[in-house]
Amino acid sequence: MRPELGVCYYPEHWAEEIWAEDARRMAETGIKWVRIGEFAWSRLEAVEGVLTWEWLDRAVAILADAKLNIVMGTPSATPPKWVVDKYPDMLAVDIDGRPRQFGSRRHYCFSHLGYRREAARMAAAMAERYGRHSAVQAWQIDNEYGCHDTTLSYSEAARCGFRDWLAQKYQSPDALNRAWGNVFWSMEYANFNDIDLPNLTTTEANPSHWLDFRRFTSEQVVAFNRAQIEAMRPHTDAPFIHNYMGRVLDFDHFAVGADLEIASWDSYPLGALERTLREDDDDWKAHFARQGDPDFQAFHHDLYRAVGQGRWWVMEQQPGPVNWAPYNPIPLNGMVKLWTLEAIAHGAEVVSYFRWRQAPFAQEQMHAGLLRPDHENAQAQIEAREVADELAKLGALDHKDAEVAIVFDYESQWAWEIQPQGQGFDYFRLVFEQYRALRKLGLNIDFLPAQTDDFGKRKLILIPALMAWNDNLRKAIDRFDGTILAGPRTGSKTQNMQIPTPLGPHFAGAKVARVATLRPNMSIPLENGGAIINWHEELEGKDAVEKTAEGQTILMRDGKNFYHFYLGGWLDQSGYLRILTDLCAAQNIKTTNMPEGIRQRAVGNKTLLLNYNAFGVKINGQKLPPASAFWY
Amino acid sequence: MRPELGVCYYPEHWAEEIWAEDARRMAETGIKWVRIGEFAWSRLEAVEGVLTWEWLDRAVAILADAKLNIVMGTPSATPPKWVVDKYPDMLAVDIDGRPRQFGSRRHYCFSHLGYRREAARMAAAMAERYGRHSAVQAWQIDNEYGCHDTTLSYSEAARCGFRDWLAQKYQSPDALNRAWGNVFWSMEYANFNDIDLPNLTTTEANPSHWLDFRRFTSEQVVAFNRAQIEAMRPHTDAPFIHNYMGRVLDFDHFAVGADLEIASWDSYPLGALERTLREDDDDWKAHFARQGDPDFQAFHHDLYRAVGQGRWWVMEQQPGPVNWAPYNPIPLNGMVKLWTLEAIAHGAEVVSYFRWRQAPFAQEQMHAGLLRPDHENAQAQIEAREVADELAKLGALDHKDAEVAIVFDYESQWAWEIQPQGQGFDYFRLVFEQYRALRKLGLNIDFLPAQTDDFGKRKLILIPALMAWNDNLRKAIDRFDGTILAGPRTGSKTQNMQIPTPLGPHFAGAKVARVATLRPNMSIPLENGGAIINWHEELEGKDAVEKTAEGQTILMRDGKNFYHFYLGGWLDQSGYLRILTDLCAAQNIKTTNMPEGIRQRAVGNKTLLLNYNAFGVKINGQKLPPASAFWY
Amino acid sequence: MRPELGVCYYPEHWAEEIWAEDARRMAETGIKWVRIGEFAWSRLEAVEGVLTWEWLDRAVAILADAKLNIVMGTPSATPPKWVVDKYPDMLAVDIDGRPRQFGSRRHYCFSHLGYRREAARMAAAMAERYGRHSAVQAWQIDNEYGCHDTTLSYSEAARCGFRDWLAQKYQSPDALNRAWGNVFWSMEYANFNDIDLPNLTTTEANPSHWLDFRRFTSEQVVAFNRAQIEAMRPHTDAPFIHNYMGRVLDFDHFAVGADLEIASWDSYPLGALERTLREDDDDWKAHFARQGDPDFQAFHHDLYRAVGQGRWWVMEQQPGPVNWAPYNPIPLNGMVKLWTLEAIAHGAEVVSYFRWRQAPFAQEQMHAGLLRPDHENAQAQIEAREVADELAKLGALDHKDAEVAIVFDYESQWAWEIQPQGQGFDYFRLVFEQYRALRKLGLNIDFLPAQTDDFGKRKLILIPALMAWNDNLRKAIDRFDGTILAGPRTGSKTQNMQIPTPLGPHFAGAKVARVATLRPNMSIPLENGGAIINWHEELEGKDAVEKTAEGQTILMRDGKNFYHFYLGGWLDQSGYLRILTDLCAAQNIKTTNMPEGIRQRAVGNKTLLLNYNAFGVKINGQKLPPASAFWY
Repeated sequence: MRPELGVCYYPEHWAEEIWAEDARRMAETGIKWVRIGEFAWSRLEAVEGVLTWEWLDRAVAILADAKLNIVMGTPSATPPKWVVDKYPDMLAVDIDGRPRQFGSRRHYCFSHLGYRREAARMAAAMAERYGRHSAVQAWQIDNEYGCHDTTLSYSEAARCGFRDWLAQKYQSPDALNRAWGNVFWSMEYANFNDIDLPNLTTTEANPSHWLDFRRFTSEQVVAFNRAQIEAMRPHTDAPFIHNYMGRVLDFDHFAVGADLEIASWDSYPLGALERTLREDDDDWKAHFARQGDPDFQAFHHDLYRAVGQGRWWVMEQQPGPVNWAPYNPIPLNGMVKLWTLEAIAHGAEVVSYFRWRQAPFAQEQMHAGLLRPDHENAQAQIEAREVADELAKLGALDHKDAEVAIVFDYESQWAWEIQPQGQGFDYFRLVFEQYRALRKLGLNIDFLPAQTDDFGKRKLILIPALMAWNDNLRKAIDRFDGTILAGPRTGSKTQNMQIPTPLGPHFAGAKVARVATLRPNMSIPLENGGAIINWHEELEGKDAVEKTAEGQTILMRDGKNFYHFYLGGWLDQSGYLRILTDLCAAQNIKTTNMPEGIRQRAVGNKTLLLNYNAFGVKINGQKLPPASAFWY
Repeated sequence: MRPELGVCYYPEHWAEEIWAEDARRMAETGIKWVRIGEFAWSRLEAVEGVLTWEWLDRAVAILADAKLNIVMGTPSATPPKWVVDKYPDMLAVDIDGRPRQFGSRRHYCFSHLGYRREAARMAAAMAERYGRHSAVQAWQIDNEYGCHDTTLSYSEAARCGFRDWLAQKYQSPDALNRAWGNVFWSMEYANFNDIDLPNLTTTEANPSHWLDFRRFTSEQVVAFNRAQIEAMRPHTDAPFIHNYMGRVLDFDHFAVGADLEIASWDSYPLGALERTLREDDDDWKAHFARQGDPDFQAFHHDLYRAVGQGRWWVMEQQPGPVNWAPYNPIPLNGMVKLWTLEAIAHGAEVVSYFRWRQAPFAQEQMHAGLLRPDHENAQAQIEAREVADELAKLGALDHKDAEVAIVFDYESQWAWEIQPQGQGFDYFRLVFEQYRALRKLGLNIDFLPAQTDDFGKRKLILIPALMAWNDNLRKAIDRFDGTILAGPRTGSKTQNMQIPTPLGPHFAGAKVARVATLRPNMSIPLENGGAIINWHEELEGKDAVEKTAEGQTILMRDGKNFYHFYLGGWLDQSGYLRILTDLCAAQNIKTTNMPEGIRQRAVGNKTLLLNYNAFGVKINGQKLPPASAFWY
Repeated sequence: MRPELGVCYYPEHWAEEIWAEDARRMAETGIKWVRIGEFAWSRLEAVEGVLTWEWLDRAVAILADAKLNIVMGTPSATPPKWVVDKYPDMLAVDIDGRPRQFGSRRHYCFSHLGYRREAARMAAAMAERYGRHSAVQAWQIDNEYGCHDTTLSYSEAARCGFRDWLAQKYQSPDALNRAWGNVFWSMEYANFNDIDLPNLTTTEANPSHWLDFRRFTSEQVVAFNRAQIEAMRPHTDAPFIHNYMGRVLDFDHFAVGADLEIASWDSYPLGALERTLREDDDDWKAHFARQGDPDFQAFHHDLYRAVGQGRWWVMEQQPGPVNWAPYNPIPLNGMVKLWTLEAIAHGAEVVSYFRWRQAPFAQEQMHAGLLRPDHENAQAQIEAREVADELAKLGALDHKDAEVAIVFDYESQWAWEIQPQGQGFDYFRLVFEQYRALRKLGLNIDFLPAQTDDFGKRKLILIPALMAWNDNLRKAIDRFDGTILAGPRTGSKTQNMQIPTPLGPHFAGAKVARVATLRPNMSIPLENGGAIINWHEELEGKDAVEKTAEGQTILMRDGKNFYHFYLGGWLDQSGYLRILTDLCAAQNIKTTNMPEGIRQRAVGNKTLLLNYNAFGVKINGQKLPPASAFWY
């Protein structure tokens, strides 16, 4: 596979006279792909039913003439005003019951069937017009599902849909009452139409009620996305893509991804550091303010490779300062190139910059592009050009499975959001900290969905905080002869989010007798170094591998299968590093202790070494300048 | 009085086959009392008017067979869905105007007369069924009034009720306008029906408006509680109890208690440390994270002894980790026993654990019980068994009045919530800090309501921050020849929450000329050690006992009655300890300086010594292990 | 001009028997002016159309007899209940869509035309009654526009008014769509009636949408104020005043001020320190807790002198502890006198204390007055009396323009609230920090509105963060031969809040290529001392005057006009002090380095030296006691 570059472009924002010049400069920059159209509904259909394709025809032609491939976006993320007037109840409703009004974007509820039809109709019209155009080589459905917290909606449409969904799932109110344990607090329902959404209750609603609402909501995203694909498929053979986001976890990306040929995501390392990774400390944020977290991009590259079943892009790559984070610094010179190469080392087919030229108006006027608003090249254009040259020399890259994989499960994220039990418990963060420890050991890492039934030839599988086991995963475990490390919280619930009897985890011979959550200023030291933070479990069972300094068992090994481990706590980095190093060694997985801010990713017979620091580092005798990446 | 143990049990949560086994194990654990029924409305009356007693008859019979006494709860805290459908406007409304929906519990407004009748009807039906059953030895009305901030409701029912209440109180709008000072800002009303609730005003509403709304609201709780008692009384002779909570101060517990035979409260030391005592520092929270604050339980034991006029229980005793605090650690081994014995030393007739077995479903599935969800004994069961053995040996305990008492006044809590004047001013906390200082001096302490007209044979009375004097209290003071220490803020308002002329406190010859509130990073040192924090008053008057380092009078003594003192500030602990030690010495009250985390409580001729620390302490030559209690 | 003292008085709050005594004591205190009437609507018109002047006639007569001048206030800030019942939709609506209810004050929406008429009718009636009374020497319109965040209202009245305003401004929806850039995200409108207010959108609304709504809102305040003046003018020749507040920036004070003869403001130094200057550090707040920020009062004195085109008062001067800040300490003895003299040194014609006597009832019962609620003199009365004596000796003061001026622009405040781009960017604070640096150099400072077309004989003009240039200001610059320092952000937008091409600032030969916002724990050191914080710009252009330690240009000088400077960053105090010292030296402006907490203000041939510290300071051989002011 030969990786290529792309860019996001909005011909409707610019005078038609400069389109050809823009196309020429894109080609000169080494760009092969151009995404267009995804916010242009008001220009394509200003009045209901009156479609105005001509300007877009001309834009497509100009790009095609410059030998650029086009990713055409369906515009359902920005329904024009007349659509909202037609369906006043299509607006999403926030958790406090307030409709989320027109005037920005993503002002629709995924459950609204009228809008779903309208969006599919428009998508079909675009596919009919451009689906066989030779330059249109891919489609993007909608834009950034979940952005601005828009997945969850507490609308009337959602309420009606949820009742139907529950009726289909449970068939009788009694079955639902049992599955949720509604006898508790006299919450029993006599009819499905008695059931409301779980927001605005006096105190917390039943966690099983919440979890079903989260599942229902996720399925609405899947259905909304699928409605467009089904309407478009007859008119095109080009692959379908969606551009996911970093740490947006409100819907099951594996489920949406099953309907798409390619996964992609929008990578904004600096914005993510400031806004998306809120929980970390200020010194660390200052250290990486102009580079981004050294593991956040890689994590999502690996996650979306799994979502795309191997095929994935970066659809939007940050090119300079953005407008939406609490603080918006300028990337260090070199970072745009580093981020691009890192994505490619993780297997991206295309890395596409957002956007071609900074817009001088509206909400994103302070968001950089490859070009400045005055049409001059910005720093990112120079770095993109350098990447294009490097890619030309690099040739095809050969990707294969990593030796280490982590099972990642969106439903577990929802379960522990609903029931953190202690403020410090966050599923994403727990997975991320295990991922970070593996990266600090220099390893390639894969992600696997919880429905995996085969771990392949991998050697080490991590299963942190999986809410409930499923048959597929049990099958994968049975087939597997490598090492598995599960816990904490793994297998602690049934599918209905009840506590099972016998108590979990039902793995490695362990039983969790009691659970403690710890204040941030408390930790429990381990006998051999490192400590437990946030979450601690009292374990019953025989085969202790690790103990706390006070002698409580914290890591157990199965008496029958010596490669099955259960870890009854959340460890700090030094604890994870020590234990993962040992587990890798036992499986002959080669680890390397990476210096601070240095990471690597192997691909084919090459390895990309990355310096995320603002200072140069000497490594293997090689001088690595600040903010640079280097193949060896 | 011979103290006993109890437990809270939900037969409706468990298969009927295990009820008898549960009863047998309760008896074996040494339990004498079982509370049942208080959340079971949907199982007793699934459809309006169709009452299903049979399952509860069988449960009662099984418990009775095991010689267990029953506390039967009325289920008004959890009205089923059909009740809400019958009275859609019965939902409480939050301060932002949003109805608090069905789907958890306590979703009713105390002012709604329709629901009040419905709850009384159901309570009467239960009393009719079980009121003469020999095993049913007590009744609990409702459950945890005020939990989830449900006392205050801004509903239409509250608005209508408030207008009537004001009309009865003031008789004419003019009288109300004068009492509130509505000429200020042209807030005058021409009719009682013009008056709205004080929420959602542009800026703060009139404090007198707020205070009357708080009084009205408190009286709704009294009326709601009384409606059930009046409906039940013809059918039973068993005593009535309510289970209050820690630091819930939204209604006047003395007024509710006047209709009940026994007071009780729900004691959750670890949850309270994390959630209810928010204002304290992180180091201290870490120190006591697995034990609870060493004074919080005692404070409420003493307070509810006063509310119950001597008769009180712990209705729910924390048995292990709970589910609802920001962090939920595991109690140190020994703490369940310590907490139980401490309650008994303070005079509890019954200490009842919540709950028998951890429920595997719904909102409280992470809340420990005496048994684990898999039916195994948890640590708390072992400690309960030990307490039962100890109680058997201990025999009857003889309680008498303490030498020291604090006047505690719910109305003052409301007044200073409405008008803190500085962020640091919190009535409960001020009282609690004076209480803590007395406890550190090894003293027994009583609480007295502000309507007390006789202090009995006590020697020292503290009257902190009482908003306004009343005739009864004046009478008690006149009759008393011990020491009284009042202030700060005591007597600073009239009953209408206006500033009196002459200025307060109208006590000890003092006059408060001006008031300052202090930032947390400011304090005013006293001449002889200790400092003023939060609140400082400039005093006029002659007989200064204490001054600040700069020479301002802070403690005054009455020129006529040398045992009347007024303290014009909030002191830090060292200030309180020094001054209270002196006042005790002058009254021949014996004080002992307790080491950190060590407390004591005398009862009859015994004293219980408690070690709240996580480490052992040697005291009076006796080694006191961590988390332990010891009679001497 | 001979400065005088005043006081705010509410005869309706007190028994008529004491009015004459009050008047006598006011005169004895040295007071010349008394403000009355501004909250008395419910006493003047308890029932619609029935006007009750008699009590006010008597109060006016009593004050006139004591030779006191009267400032009569129109009572539109506190419409009585019947007005709200007449116009239920006149209530302002908050950003969450909730009406702001009756029960305090300022419960009206500026856009509501019915209420606007009602307020003008009442104002006219007062003017008719008292407009020719010899004692009524001035009028105050309404009270504290904007207090309690009441400028912005999201009501139906505002929505309708905004649509009309946009239609008049843009004439066609297409013109509006272009001006706002609504093609972005398909936000285009086909009709003006499609446009909603910018609150409650899914994510941020278009900044141009917001800015127009802020302009519309500000114009509603102007129109509301003007409606009263126009109704009153036929009946009186006395000057009109409004009492503005500190750091209330929601409407254009210059525009309101253009309709008034005199500006005034309400100066609460301690409350402002605690509540209005939130962003500063705790140590600093403790240092000045009993004195106030040493620059906050002066800043507003100078600003409102500009708003009043030279004529200004302090209408409300804090006399002691207030009731509304998070903490309310007692001013150090001497501060009331210091604050009063400082205002006079800045040119105040009258300094009027709020209020005569502390009210014992309602919302402000804890707000001090010159008298205590028990009629005794408070400390402030003593200090006011001292000031009166000092003023008698001082004689007339002669004010002239300062050598240094800052351009202050309300519209820029709105623009950067809408688009801070980094959390640290606050327009007021940036201007305040530049002002503080100038004050630390001992300078007199003037403010100028952005529509100024002549800088007069001044020598140094600062233009920080002006959103967009205008023709008048361009003219002033062209006429000027002194030094101008602009930036950061100055000239970075068009009037429609779009980025101009060529890029700004269009000044001093500079071009801003890119912008970075910095975390609070990051800064960029300058080559010659000081550092950039919050905001940093990459500059293009030739003539660098200052560079960062890493060599990036930060201060540029025009190649053509060597006195035009552009500063591409927000500096810390040491950076500003250094650069401003140099710019002053080049213009022969004499600077003095003031010690901490010491400030000065020159007037005529005198200079007032102020010690804001709580400790004495020796300066120029002169001992300056704590909290004191001294003419030299």
